[in-house]
This record gives sequence, C-alpha cells and structure tokens, in this order.
Amino acid sequence: MAFLKSWFPIPSGSHFSLANIPFGIISTESSPKPRVGVAIGDHALDLQAFAKHNGFSALSTIQPFQAVFSELNLNAFAALGRPVHSVVRKYIQSIFAADTVHPDVLKDKPELQKLALIPLKDVINHIPFKIGDYTDFYSGLNHAVNCSRILRGIGGLQPNYKQLPVGYHGRASSVVVSGTPIKRPSGQILETPQAKAPIFSACRKLDFELELGCFVCKPNDMGDPVLIDKAEENLFGVVLMNDWSARDIQSWEMVPLGPFNAKNFGTSISAWVVTMDALEPFLTQGIENDQEILSYLREPRKENVYDIKLNVDLKTNSGKSKTICKTSAKNLLFSFPQMLAHHTVGGCPFNVGDLMGSGTISGKDDRDSYGALLEQTENGQIPIKFDSGEERTFLLDGDTITFTGVCGNDPEQLVGFGECSGMILPAVKF
Amino acid sequence: MAFLKSWFPIPSGSHFSLANIPFGIISTESSPKPRVGVAIGDHALDLQAFAKHNGFSALSTIQPFQAVFSELNLNAFAALGRPVHSVVRKYIQSIFAADTVHPDVLKDKPELQKLALIPLKDVINHIPFKIGDYTDFYSGLNHAVNCSRILRGIGGLQPNYKQLPVGYHGRASSVVVSGTPIKRPSGQILETPQAKAPIFSACRKLDFELELGCFVCKPNDMGDPVLIDKAEENLFGVVLMNDWSARDIQSWEMVPLGPFNAKNFGTSISAWVVTMDALEPFLTQGIENDQEILSYLREPRKENVYDIKLNVDLKTNSGKSKTICKTSAKNLLFSFPQMLAHHTVGGCPFNVGDLMGSGTISGKDDRDSYGALLEQTENGQIPIKFDSGEERTFLLDGDTITFTGVCGNDPEQLVGFGECSGMILPAVKF
Repeated sequence: MAFLKSWFPIPSGSHFSLANIPFGIISTESSPKPRVGVAIGDHALDLQAFAKHNGFSALSTIQPFQAVFSELNLNAFAALGRPVHSVVRKYIQSIFAADTVHPDVLKDKPELQKLALIPLKDVINHIPFKIGDYTDFYSGLNHAVNCSRILRGIGGLQPNYKQLPVGYHGRASSVVVSGTPIKRPSGQILETPQAKAPIFSACRKLDFELELGCFVCKPNDMGDPVLIDKAEENLFGVVLMNDWSARDIQSWEMVPLGPFNAKNFGTSISAWVVTMDALEPFLTQGIENDQEILSYLREPRKENVYDIKLNVDLKTNSGKSKTICKTSAKNLLFSFPQMLAHHTVGGCPFNVGDLMGSGTISGKDDRDSYGALLEQTENGQIPIKFDSGEERTFLLDGDTITFTGVCGNDPEQLVGFGECSGMILPAVKF
Repeated sequence: MAFLKSWFPIPSGSHFSLANIPFGIISTESSPKPRVGVAIGDHALDLQAFAKHNGFSALSTIQPFQAVFSELNLNAFAALGRPVHSVVRKYIQSIFAADTVHPDVLKDKPELQKLALIPLKDVINHIPFKIGDYTDFYSGLNHAVNCSRILRGIGGLQPNYKQLPVGYHGRASSVVVSGTPIKRPSGQILETPQAKAPIFSACRKLDFELELGCFVCKPNDMGDPVLIDKAEENLFGVVLMNDWSARDIQSWEMVPLGPFNAKNFGTSISAWVVTMDALEPFLTQGIENDQEILSYLREPRKENVYDIKLNVDLKTNSGKSKTICKTSAKNLLFSFPQMLAHHTVGGCPFNVGDLMGSGTISGKDDRDSYGALLEQTENGQIPIKFDSGEERTFLLDGDTITFTGVCGNDPEQLVGFGECSGMILPAVKF
C-alpha cells in the first residue's frame, strides 16, 4: 500500500495511522449513547456525527445505510459485508489524505472537525460487537507444547493437534472490553495432586493468555459449511484478546469436557477492531505443519497469519511495570479462515458478531516470548523478578495486565490495536 | 395442587392440562408473526390476541406489561420474574376453570375463543427464547458411568465427577425447536484406533442424547455468583432437549478441550416451556451423592429433581416406530439450581434466555432405560431390533427421534412437555 500522508495531525508512532482505520463503539460523558467510530491518531472520528453532517456526501453507496453508524454495536455495519467495509475504510482514508479530493467534507470544515473528532482521552470505549457465540481455539503450537510438558510431563501433543484447529466453545456473556476490571474467581481446587477432595477457595493461580480474537461478519446457515477459500470473506477484523485463566480451577475441572469455570469469569478484548483489509499487508507464513492436512483445511496461500508484534506488560499492585513477553502473532499453526472452515464443516451456523479466539500465542524458545504465566513460570516454579525486588508467579489482586499489538516498522504507518488491559480485583467474599 | 376442572374441552391424557400452562412462541400460516402463547389441551391460547381483547382485564398487575406477549421470544416475559410468571399462569388457570369467577373474560365470549384459541395442529412453533449462551452439563450419573465403561473400558468416573456438575459451553446458534430437521454432520474421524491419520467423512455414528434443558429468567452481573438457595428464583422453566452427538467425530476431537463439532451441528428442544411452578409438585430425590459436596452446592431440600417419565421413540426411514427408551428425569446427580450455582460461583454472568442442559439421562440397569444409542448398543456392538426385521446401531438418514416427557398419573391433570423431535437429513456433499 502506498504511504498515506494526512492533513490531520497523527502523532508519529500512533497505532492508528491512516493505514489502519479500525472500527469501534464509542461514547463520551457528554454524549453517552454508544455509536460507531474509527480511531485516527489520538482521536476518534464519530461516524454518527460525521454521517449526520454529510460526511458521506461523496460516497453515495453508503448513504442508504448510514443508520448503521448510530447502532450500539458494529453488527449492522459488519453485516453489510467485506466490500462495504473496504469502501468505507478507503473513503475515510481519502477524506483524511493530505491531497484529498474532497476537502469540503472535513478538511475545510473546522466546525465538523470539532464536533466529530474526539480526543481518545475523552472517549469511552464499549464492547464492539454483540457477540452471539464465542469460540476459543488452541492454535498456538508452542503454547500447546509447553502446556503438555509442564502439566502432563510429556513433550508430545495429542494426536489430533496438527490435524485440526482444536477448540472449545467459550462464554460470550463474559467477554468484556479493555479496561474492565476482572474479579478473581473462586471455585473448587485440589490443593495437592494427592488430595482426596477439593477445597473451596479463591483462585491461587490466576493467569492471562495472549491471543487474537476475530469477528465474523457474514452468517452461514445451519448445515451449510463455509468453504476454506471463501472463509476470509466472512471475517470482519481482529482484536487482541486476553483469555484470563484460573489454572488451579482448570486442572481440577477440565477432564473430560474441557475448561469451564476456569475461563468463563472473564475474557478481555481490545476496543478497536482492525479490519482484515488493514492487516492484509502483514500476512506471513505461520508455523509450518509437518503433517498433511485434509483438503477442507488447505488454503490457497501459505501466508495466512499476521506478523503482529505483541507485548505483554505486567504492572504490579505497587505500580511497577515490566514487559514480560514479546512475541509475534505469526506463532500459530492454523489461521482464522482455517478455524472458521473447521468450525462450520459439520454445519455449525455462525451469526454476525460471533467471535473466534486464536489460542495462546507463545514464541518457540525464549521464556519471555511465552504468552501465559503458566509457561513463563513453569506453573509457578520460576518467579518473574522485577527491578523493585517484587516477584510474580501468578497474578495478585491489583495487578494489571496490558497487551499491545502493532504491525509495521515505519512509525508513520503503523497498523496497531491499541491495548487490551485489565486489572485484577479481589475475589467475592462468600 | 387441587384438581382443576375446565369449562373448555381438554382431552383426557393431554400433556397440557390446566395443571400445566406451558409457554411458547407461536404463529400460524394466516398470522405469521411469532408471538407468545400457552398450550391448553389441543389448543394454544394466543396471548397477544387475548391481551388485545382485554383478556387480562381482571389482572391489573400485568396490564402495563402486556406488550411482552407480542414479542418474538419469551425473553421479555421471562425477565418480569418468577412472581409474575406465577400470577399469569394462575390467572390463566382461573380463566379456564369450570367455576371461573371471570366468565366474561373468555368463557362467555365465543368470538374471542374463536380468535385466540388456535388448534395445535394449525400452530407453528418457534424457538421459545433468544438464547444468549448455552451450557451443557453431564449430570446423568448412569450415563457417565456407562460412557466411562464403554469408551474407556473402566467402570470409574473422573475424580471431579461427584464434586461438581461437570459441564461445557455449548453452541447457542444451533439450538433449534422440535421439528427442525438435522443434517448429518461431516468431519474428521479416525477409522480405527490404530489409524495414523483421520479421514474426512460423513458421521457414521450419529446419536441422540436424552436431556432436559432449563431456561434462566434472571440475569446476574459478572463477578456476582448466584447462591444456591436463591438459584431457583433465576429459573423460568424446563424443556426436553436432544443433544445430537456425532460419536466418531467426538472421540477424535475431544481430547483435551472437550466436545466441539461433535455437538455444535444441532441441538433440539421441545417448543413448550413448562414453568418451574408447574413442575414443583413432581420434585423428588435424585441420585444420591455418596460424596460430601462443598457448601456452595448444598441445597436446603433433598427433593431437587423432577420425576418426569421420559420416552424415546425411533421411527426408521421405512416408517417403523419403536419406543427404545423409557426412564425418569430423576436420574440426575445434580439439580438445575446446583448447576446454576456452580456455573456462576466464579462470577460467570447469565442473561435472560440462557439455557442449561442437564446431561444425558439414563436409568441405572436396563438397557432400554439408557438415553443414548452409544449406551443402548454398546457403541454399535448390539443392534436394536425392530419387529420389521430392521436393525439400528446408530441413526440412518431419514430416521426420526422423538422424545416425550410427562409428569403425573391422572390423565386429566398431566403436566407434559409435548414432544421433541427431529429427522436426520443426508450429509452435505463436499
């Protein structure tokens, strides 16, 4: 993509360069009804206000559909389909371009700028989609290998692991937007592997999981699989996702039907959804699969995952921060199109706004590329040390985990996700 | 409850006696917009029409809320809360009572009867709730014991089984109302346990699972557990549920994160939701738990499950029918209040309309009390024989499974569920 320069001041290093244009749901204190916006530099463009003041006057195709920008979520906009998302994003880029051919729309309208361009510090972000169903996959091969070794003492994977994107249905009701505090869950835990019975306790092994989430924009009917070479058309965009995990609750409950209360107390996602179009230039090859996969999962191209530079910061309850993980989102064995093709191959229907999580993304070798404390600390055996002398194995009350993710190297053209952040609150007293 | 006699003809043996009054979503060919109704004998009372024609004139408390009966699902009515459901149900009973004190409402109004009482044969039933999240439990102890023996060759259960209602998140998007055909899923299966790689195939071991489903009517916030002695207040009512299962897909995919495509191709529920009030007289003691459970799961009463007589009929694609299973819904180790208390103990939020499945209900000893073909046929080893000479291990295309469930013995006072039925359609051709 050619470099886009803007007449509007976009700070160098912004995640929200003109190359991005991510969509989200915004409100402000003075205008509390949520509506659709896009992020540009340090501002959000309020698309409801923009539309009302003839912002789309030079894009006739979108005009009959402008009501979607006043919706409480992105579902109606997303349902318009990939070609419409592309056109709207490109139009907004063209309006902000230094050499815009439509200066009368926004560039030469300081009063509309004042009305529709809201500093991000004044923006309240809301969950971007009404999520019907949420599925979490397990496609981070390095994470799966590490978990297998740490938890089961073996280096091998399950026989199915490389043949299909292993996944489980998650809980849509507890997916929350970045910034929402997460209460430490309580539940049944087995204090030692030898214990005869569980005790009831607040979770003692509270963890994060570094993932991507992907929203679906095109429904498929029950019984009607989405074929692999059509799957990307059904995807709207990507967010950072923290699949908070209670490791002690998980290890006791999960055999044989999978994780349950260990996960359903909260899942955080970043507020701005980066479109598939914006991510396209950063496609790269994922982890190579050394097994032959069935044809319904075979993609036309090898570049099927994104080289997103991911960071995890842990800020302790005393206020000390440390970047504890650096890795890339390319550390996946299966892509989102493969996940969707697999998920629907038996006929499972999707609705607009359904969410798929990638699974935890960990680098291959370095401990500080691992996307969960379980792996970083070898299940609590090796603490993470802070310069302040503090240590962490798992999360304490008041700790905050913040993910950031960004594509590209030119600070004027970054395609980033902002952050996905959550602070741990104390458990409920029973 | 005292016996209720009606001025309206209710056939002897009807599931929908005056003691029942289950709620559902109905339409007709001539009036295709779905709305709320209750079943009475061989008719549905259209509550939208009833309300519009002053049916609730003698129930002043409900009048401000009558718009809920014009909704496309029961969510808004359910959200009014248990006391309102009770009042509405009792009021409808009183209107239909032989000695009604409000004959002017319906009994003496033949024109309103003609308008609002629709023969069930003309009623189109719709999915009763907009389901946010759906969870399937595994509380049928006998089923769990049988699966353990048949699939893993051991008689024992997992150590967690009696300590907590084991469950997994299901797929809300594929829950459908009784009568909806179910397309045979395709997917990855391992042809033999020794096979090195899976093949892609239409499911060869298509099964049903006999369950109850329970709808939630009261939300709880994230981080805010529902305590066991308050849990029943959050429950609206119960349906029959068929958790269709692809056994061959399941056995290959489910380790370690649980069932996925083996289940998400379709789940059928009966159309009429029987309220907790209607079921109350049929509470009985479930399967005794020989382990001490943690206090958050301990219920004030021992009678916590329902003695619902359940039948499963298999009609083959040649039209021959056989009742292949008879059992009682009391064959559960945990109750719905226990499931909800466990599900929320870590803070998982529920919305109105969320659905919980009980897990497969099987009797203890007799093969023909088992609630799945996996158990009845010992995973395909022992076919079910029909008088016609036909045999079945798993379901063939064109076969129909129909569940019925009914409480009580007096044919004038039954509290039944009608049926939960689905026919198998051939797999998609890839």
